[in-house]
Amino acid sequence: MSIRFSYISLGFSVAVALMLLSCVGHEGNEGQQRLTDPTAHPQLTLTLQGVEQIKTSLGQVPLFDQTLSDVIAEVDAELANGIEVPVPKDLAGGYTHERHKSNFFIMQKAGTLFQITGDDKYAVYLRDMLLAYAELWPTIGKHPAERSYARGKLFWQCLNDANWLVYTSQGYDCIYDWLDVPTREKLNKELFRPYAEYVSVENPQFFNRIHNHSTWGNAAVGMIGLVMDDEELINWSLYGLDIEVPGDIVKDNDGGDIKLEGQKEAGFLAQIDHSFSPDGYYTEGPYYQRYAMYPFLIFAEGLANKKPELKILDYRDGLLIKAINTLINQTNSAGEFFPINDSQKGMSLASRELVSAVSIAYYYGGNDPGLLSIVEDQGRVPLNNAGLASAKAVAEGKAKKYQYKSMELADGAAGDEGAIGILRADDLTLVMKYAKHGMGHGHFDRLGFLLYDETGEVIQDYGAARWVNVEHKDGGGYLKENRSWAKETVAHNTLVVDKDSHFDGNVKKADQTAGMPYYFLSGDDVQIVSAKEQNAYPGIDLQRTMAVVRIEELESPLVIDLFSVQAPEGSRYDLPLYYVGEFMSSNQKFQTNNVLSPMGKESGYQHLWAEAQTTLEGDVFSMTWFNKKKFYTVTSVVELGDEMILTRIGANDPNFNLRRDPGLIHRRTGGNTVFASLYEIHGSYDYASERPLNSFTSVATMKILHQSEAYVVVQFQLKTGERYQFACSLLNDSKTAKHTVEDANGQWQWQGIYNLKKNI
Amino acid sequence: MSIRFSYISLGFSVAVALMLLSCVGHEGNEGQQRLTDPTAHPQLTLTLQGVEQIKTSLGQVPLFDQTLSDVIAEVDAELANGIEVPVPKDLAGGYTHERHKSNFFIMQKAGTLFQITGDDKYAVYLRDMLLAYAELWPTIGKHPAERSYARGKLFWQCLNDANWLVYTSQGYDCIYDWLDVPTREKLNKELFRPYAEYVSVENPQFFNRIHNHSTWGNAAVGMIGLVMDDEELINWSLYGLDIEVPGDIVKDNDGGDIKLEGQKEAGFLAQIDHSFSPDGYYTEGPYYQRYAMYPFLIFAEGLANKKPELKILDYRDGLLIKAINTLINQTNSAGEFFPINDSQKGMSLASRELVSAVSIAYYYGGNDPGLLSIVEDQGRVPLNNAGLASAKAVAEGKAKKYQYKSMELADGAAGDEGAIGILRADDLTLVMKYAKHGMGHGHFDRLGFLLYDETGEVIQDYGAARWVNVEHKDGGGYLKENRSWAKETVAHNTLVVDKDSHFDGNVKKADQTAGMPYYFLSGDDVQIVSAKEQNAYPGIDLQRTMAVVRIEELESPLVIDLFSVQAPEGSRYDLPLYYVGEFMSSNQKFQTNNVLSPMGKESGYQHLWAEAQTTLEGDVFSMTWFNKKKFYTVTSVVELGDEMILTRIGANDPNFNLRRDPGLIHRRTGGNTVFASLYEIHGSYDYASERPLNSFTSVATMKILHQSEAYVVVQFQLKTGERYQFACSLLNDSKTAKHTVEDANGQWQWQGIYNLKKNI
Repeated sequence: MSIRFSYISLGFSVAVALMLLSCVGHEGNEGQQRLTDPTAHPQLTLTLQGVEQIKTSLGQVPLFDQTLSDVIAEVDAELANGIEVPVPKDLAGGYTHERHKSNFFIMQKAGTLFQITGDDKYAVYLRDMLLAYAELWPTIGKHPAERSYARGKLFWQCLNDANWLVYTSQGYDCIYDWLDVPTREKLNKELFRPYAEYVSVENPQFFNRIHNHSTWGNAAVGMIGLVMDDEELINWSLYGLDIEVPGDIVKDNDGGDIKLEGQKEAGFLAQIDHSFSPDGYYTEGPYYQRYAMYPFLIFAEGLANKKPELKILDYRDGLLIKAINTLINQTNSAGEFFPINDSQKGMSLASRELVSAVSIAYYYGGNDPGLLSIVEDQGRVPLNNAGLASAKAVAEGKAKKYQYKSMELADGAAGDEGAIGILRADDLTLVMKYAKHGMGHGHFDRLGFLLYDETGEVIQDYGAARWVNVEHKDGGGYLKENRSWAKETVAHNTLVVDKDSHFDGNVKKADQTAGMPYYFLSGDDVQIVSAKEQNAYPGIDLQRTMAVVRIEELESPLVIDLFSVQAPEGSRYDLPLYYVGEFMSSNQKFQTNNVLSPMGKESGYQHLWAEAQTTLEGDVFSMTWFNKKKFYTVTSVVELGDEMILTRIGANDPNFNLRRDPGLIHRRTGGNTVFASLYEIHGSYDYASERPLNSFTSVATMKILHQSEAYVVVQFQLKTGERYQFACSLLNDSKTAKHTVEDANGQWQWQGIYNLKKNI
Repeated sequence: MSIRFSYISLGFSVAVALMLLSCVGHEGNEGQQRLTDPTAHPQLTLTLQGVEQIKTSLGQVPLFDQTLSDVIAEVDAELANGIEVPVPKDLAGGYTHERHKSNFFIMQKAGTLFQITGDDKYAVYLRDMLLAYAELWPTIGKHPAERSYARGKLFWQCLNDANWLVYTSQGYDCIYDWLDVPTREKLNKELFRPYAEYVSVENPQFFNRIHNHSTWGNAAVGMIGLVMDDEELINWSLYGLDIEVPGDIVKDNDGGDIKLEGQKEAGFLAQIDHSFSPDGYYTEGPYYQRYAMYPFLIFAEGLANKKPELKILDYRDGLLIKAINTLINQTNSAGEFFPINDSQKGMSLASRELVSAVSIAYYYGGNDPGLLSIVEDQGRVPLNNAGLASAKAVAEGKAKKYQYKSMELADGAAGDEGAIGILRADDLTLVMKYAKHGMGHGHFDRLGFLLYDETGEVIQDYGAARWVNVEHKDGGGYLKENRSWAKETVAHNTLVVDKDSHFDGNVKKADQTAGMPYYFLSGDDVQIVSAKEQNAYPGIDLQRTMAVVRIEELESPLVIDLFSVQAPEGSRYDLPLYYVGEFMSSNQKFQTNNVLSPMGKESGYQHLWAEAQTTLEGDVFSMTWFNKKKFYTVTSVVELGDEMILTRIGANDPNFNLRRDPGLIHRRTGGNTVFASLYEIHGSYDYASERPLNSFTSVATMKILHQSEAYVVVQFQLKTGERYQFACSLLNDSKTAKHTVEDANGQWQWQGIYNLKKNI
């Protein structure tokens, strides 16, 4: 099926594009008529008016021109390569999967280039590839790989088939008016309508859910519906199908329920209603929000252009635009998303979805100049109106540094089902999760936290056990260690009681409740996030209060961590801490093990080696580690009998799927108790100067002065002598209530939820 | 002793420096006379003429101005802080150590600033600090820490005392003429002369060796001798002491011999004679060469200025300048030195020693514009003539990219004691070591290799087990795991026979011989390094031949590795490979271990866990790993009974001093044999696009067609069908000899040492 001979690269500079434009010339009266014809294409992400603006701006907007050059180079290379539309066979990472995936990206780009450059070669290539797909489609059944709950035809799962249609619709839109009528009708009838039916009515268990898979399905069907003016498809996409999902398919491949209890609605509008909280938080977390945002936004753009009467971008108070900012705020200083829930680490603002989204947010969302600094970092823009606008603004020097702020992002459609709290101070970012479980992609990590500084991770979340699309690793899908390790509580920086994960590792139970926000304070010198969890373990109340405070004697903000537990005597607590870096020293003497065996048989413990352990002595445990160029110290209050275990991930890992990362486990047996710790970021060292600065902790000691169900009061003293006391009310969140706490250790009085005092 | 009040920062811009210059004005006739007075100071690294040139260039040379601003800011902060000259107490990393170290850097800089800005405050500060040292010196004995073979007074070892004197001499030189005569005489008599005697005649075991420690000692004594015009000190420094080293001190702290057999000479000139090979290679390796270069070059600059009749920079055909280029060529693409022998990884061209050295090489070594790109990367220059010249050239746009080339660097004073071979092709760098042992800092790694690409390490050397200057880690000195792990053969990518390190781990035996270069070919499509080792194991001959070849079907150059062994039947071979990254997949099925125990009791095996192992099946072993953004595959020919072990470093490591790095061990029992492997660099993957490209090996199979003492012939076939044969003559290195090899597998004929053929 190679047509290699017919596409000779003409070079790929904007100069060429300009030359081509001058050849095709202006369209005169006919062009003017088309500009006002509501049935004229393109009408999804490109519009006739938009294309005209782009053409007149070429050569004047560097970021746009550069992107255009890159895309021309990429597409021309594919043209030179010829068309390949193989019979589907492989899983993700394999040849046929990657080829069809590459094809849809290229078809979308080829369509765009046809519109911008007017060069027929792109339209011819796209048409011929579509005709090849039209030949293939009727000849193939379901994809031969049988692992999906909703097998696709081109791909192993409908999700990827929907991806194909979302992108390909955009390309098709660009050549729709250029095609001769018989070809267009052939493609509509023999390829696109059956394709759209396949990913909708033929697979309602895929299409009719409230889930990111269905968002892709809805957008796919809706976008091709818009192109073909097929109102039935558009209606399916917006409002869902009136079809019962066959009863035998109840779970997707990630363990998520196909039908949520009480769910009646489906379709794109219902996705917007149910997928996001009023804060624009997406319950599966930022990794999947990034993935889901693309169909949300690209279909919304299409609807805004073709069906402006829907006012889709204003829907739910402009939630789609807000959600982009929410997503940006869930990144560290390198622009990488917080890897909560199932997330491959390293996914970032550099992704194609965000390249599209950030320009949309700029263009439709009030021209925030902070977004332009992200566009600059991305180094490319979408080749459409939004991309042109943001690239122009960058060229005009309007970019400002994006201002990350501390914020609490509520979860749940009504915003009343938990939240994540993000505290930022200087280069420090602390994230605490007390949101909903996150459905099939959720982890059992209530009250877990992550800590970053400008070097990256300080206290890490493992992320997902997965190499997305990498065929070496079980076809690029979720690895079995994702369930047996990455989702389990012991893999997170939160409390494990009696060696069992939260909710006994049951997704259904976890999905029914959310963490309870208790207090959130953003500000300057003292910032606090506090939340409760009363469902993870029956009969046990957990509350974690984390404060980021500026201490004048310290070079970086200090993190105070108070994890309170109300539980029956004899409970066994394990509190892991996944520090990132190399162990430097501890004030405790560890016994290392000369024989390693797994720490347990289930709940994730089967994947941990105990490299060393000790029964803690003295008032505090202290350990310093080093990473990249800085030192970090954890200081924790010791209770009699406490143990500390130095762990290493990697036991029971037959395919070497897990990273050999280190961790600490603070182990205690007791009833009501508080784990109190400080996390310090300090000093520096680099390998060229070999000069360590401030490599030791500044904390001399720490103690818990009072702990009860209602209050906790801690004190820490610096080596320079200053003493600090931090008190917190755990039951009364009134900002004005006065508290008096008195016990054998002393008496404390304060007003409001917390109190930080120096040298009392 | 604080004189905080007297130094008020005046700001620290070049503008201020210029302002100060305009205040001090020109020196008129008196200045002209001084310029021609041979006794006038400064005369070491700064000269009166040089200072004049610098003054007239201020504000015109950005890199110089920027460095000056930075240094003014740094020194002014110290001035504001006041003088601290504590009684010596701590080891490296501790307060008194770091304070005295900081003081000598600042004194050198303060002197320089006095010369450049003419501001008396720098001279006053420096004088007062020197007077504080003059007070301290007579009151202190040897440093209280007793671990050094040559205890210092300010520091735990004489080496650091010598560092102090090398830097402080430069500062003293700058204010020498400014001081009143009584102060100068007091400092000369009560501080500097006794100090110089301490690090020379009072510690001949430190001063009178051929060793980098002694180079520092020689330079220290020589430089202060030049400043004070003390010919006795200068003679000691140049020619060594006529003193017998006391017989009871025979080893230094790193296990090096104090007196080398047959060594008669000592002093600076002898260091140049013996420390470098004619290629400018330093036997301890680049990490120590970098460290040693500073005193070599800085003292040489002083000698060139004060005693031009010595023609020190022409000595041994300009070896000191050549050695800088040799050092630069021992870096990877990030400018980091190859970590052979004892080396802390990450030390690089960014170090202060190289900032000084590269400008010296530019200024005195023929103005190579390639050096200027390194100066640009360094982002700072030394504040002297050489620095001014290179900064000016950068400002004039003369910089070109430094051209790394393949080269063999001979070891040994006469260049006949082994070598290291460096092959470079595109972004690939292969380093093979068959040099001398490297004395006390040597590792037992004959025929070991390292592999880099543009992302960094592909196949790593562990480097040293040490955190230089980091007090957490045993005071920043060598850790005991440096000897028990990092030096041992199994820690390197070379052959271990019968579980014992080369030379039975005996430094003295190892120092007596060197590897034997056999063949080195640099070029374009085929590059080869081949060397023999006949002493590491008695009665066993080793030869390793590594080729870097361009294969048109592959995206990156391919490495062919043929390790031939002539040994008695029943020898047990372990060939480790320390790949860097995450295991992706293998064509073999490994059995993972649920209980880990150390792989042995000695020779480094006590630090290895066997995570998994298998008896190899089929013709080849193949394993792919991923790191940063690329895939890598090793393919090795399997002999019947071969085993492969997946290892992890970290057993018997009570203080968590070792990195948990992975490795492979190819295990075989036999007699004469060849280990044949290919290393491929292929494909890409990034976390924002999640799209793997070319993630699988292109090699279908590999076999050894012929192996004997005289020849090895291997064949490998690509998945695309092409077959390649590589033949090598192991005994006859004639480039014209004709070879015919015939055995049951076939017949091969070629001319010269090697032959690479396609599709025969």
